Amino acid sequence: MTTLSPTPRSTLTRKKDRAATDRERLYEVLDDGLICHLGLVLNGSPVVLPTGYGRDGDTLYFHGSTGAGNLRAAATGIDVCVTVTLLDGLVYARSLNNHSMNYRSAVVHGSARLVTGEEKMHGLHVVTEHLTPGSWDHARAVNAKELASVSVLALDLAEASVKIRAGEPIDEPEDMDSHEIWAGVVPVQTTFGEPIPAAYMPAGAPIPPHVRARG
Amino acid sequence: MTTLSPTPRSTLTRKKDRAATDRERLYEVLDDGLICHLGLVLNGSPVVLPTGYGRDGDTLYFHGSTGAGNLRAAATGIDVCVTVTLLDGLVYARSLNNHSMNYRSAVVHGSARLVTGEEKMHGLHVVTEHLTPGSWDHARAVNAKELASVSVLALDLAEASVKIRAGEPIDEPEDMDSHEIWAGVVPVQTTFGEPIPAAYMPAGAPIPPHVRARG
Repeated sequence: MTTLSPTPRSTLTRKKDRAATDRERLYEVLDDGLICHLGLVLNGSPVVLPTGYGRDGDTLYFHGSTGAGNLRAAATGIDVCVTVTLLDGLVYARSLNNHSMNYRSAVVHGSARLVTGEEKMHGLHVVTEHLTPGSWDHARAVNAKELASVSVLALDLAEASVKIRAGEPIDEPEDMDSHEIWAGVVPVQTTFGEPIPAAYMPAGAPIPPHVRARG
Repeated sequence: MTTLSPTPRSTLTRKKDRAATDRERLYEVLDDGLICHLGLVLNGSPVVLPTGYGRDGDTLYFHGSTGAGNLRAAATGIDVCVTVTLLDGLVYARSLNNHSMNYRSAVVHGSARLVTGEEKMHGLHVVTEHLTPGSWDHARAVNAKELASVSVLALDLAEASVKIRAGEPIDEPEDMDSHEIWAGVVPVQTTFGEPIPAAYMPAGAPIPPHVRARG
């Protein structure tokens, strides 16, 4: 488990000489993930919603309809928490208590800001290219009316933590000879299937390289 | 998009005659998911963390170390939000604005309660069998010391909402003849790989049926 930022909301266990490595790991988790979970406080209660996002350097962008209450609330500058989790494996140990998961997760705390103008279009670009690389140059551009219907928020990667569990189960000494109990890992992967054209695509239309590369 | 519970924190768009169907969908999303994201408010700020869970009827169980601050906070009966999201596809539309995701998400609001005694063991059973079916009967049982080191929380599925997006992209009339732009869906799946035995397993030991069935 590694941590990036020594604030009260982040864990404080990291060694300073690992900071650079940790930031690379943060980038890896954020770049490998597909969706994030955005948490904020609405009327005193926590709300956690799945959201698309993208990263450019040390900025995370996410977007949504201007009509979405959670986005409107986040845009006012209240604290948010954005979490990206990659489940890498199910860990079977000899004892139930040592069963675990292999995973990588990034947790980012901060106050998001509503972006406008050039940065708003840039944010949409980043979010689009994260989920559907190549679409920005292939599909019809956003027009003024569509742009107005979307909010784009930016969150600095200033206060973030990364947790990683990888590798074998860890069993108790008392269980090491219990070879009748299976111990190991079942890997978990996210995979993309064969692209399915929309019914309104002409029959036999080729699947473009950027879609083929994703699928 | 469907909603189960008409409270201010849930959306209010459902038709009453769909309530039964909606509950079935809630169960499906929760049962198909592997991990949840648990949100709560700590020191005024939202915190969202990935967590294992399991469902029994209308109760969601989740667990963690008694030393984990977020579990300790949740056990005091504060509001929590548990979200399970399944990403099913990347939706490529002809316009960037209509790009989307196919997904199923369940959002449960409520106040969790710390469970003890028989229900605590039952909760551990439910969580274990959700992630690693068959392990409860195969692996070494939890002993008293291990049981004391774990907190198990229960959350009633009383206030929950389900959102589902499925199927084709939805494009604007103005884009329907732009056949040079690809529209369709790239399916996203979670898959399990070949089980990897721990290094301390005897060479050639068979992989038990319950692990094989998962992998």
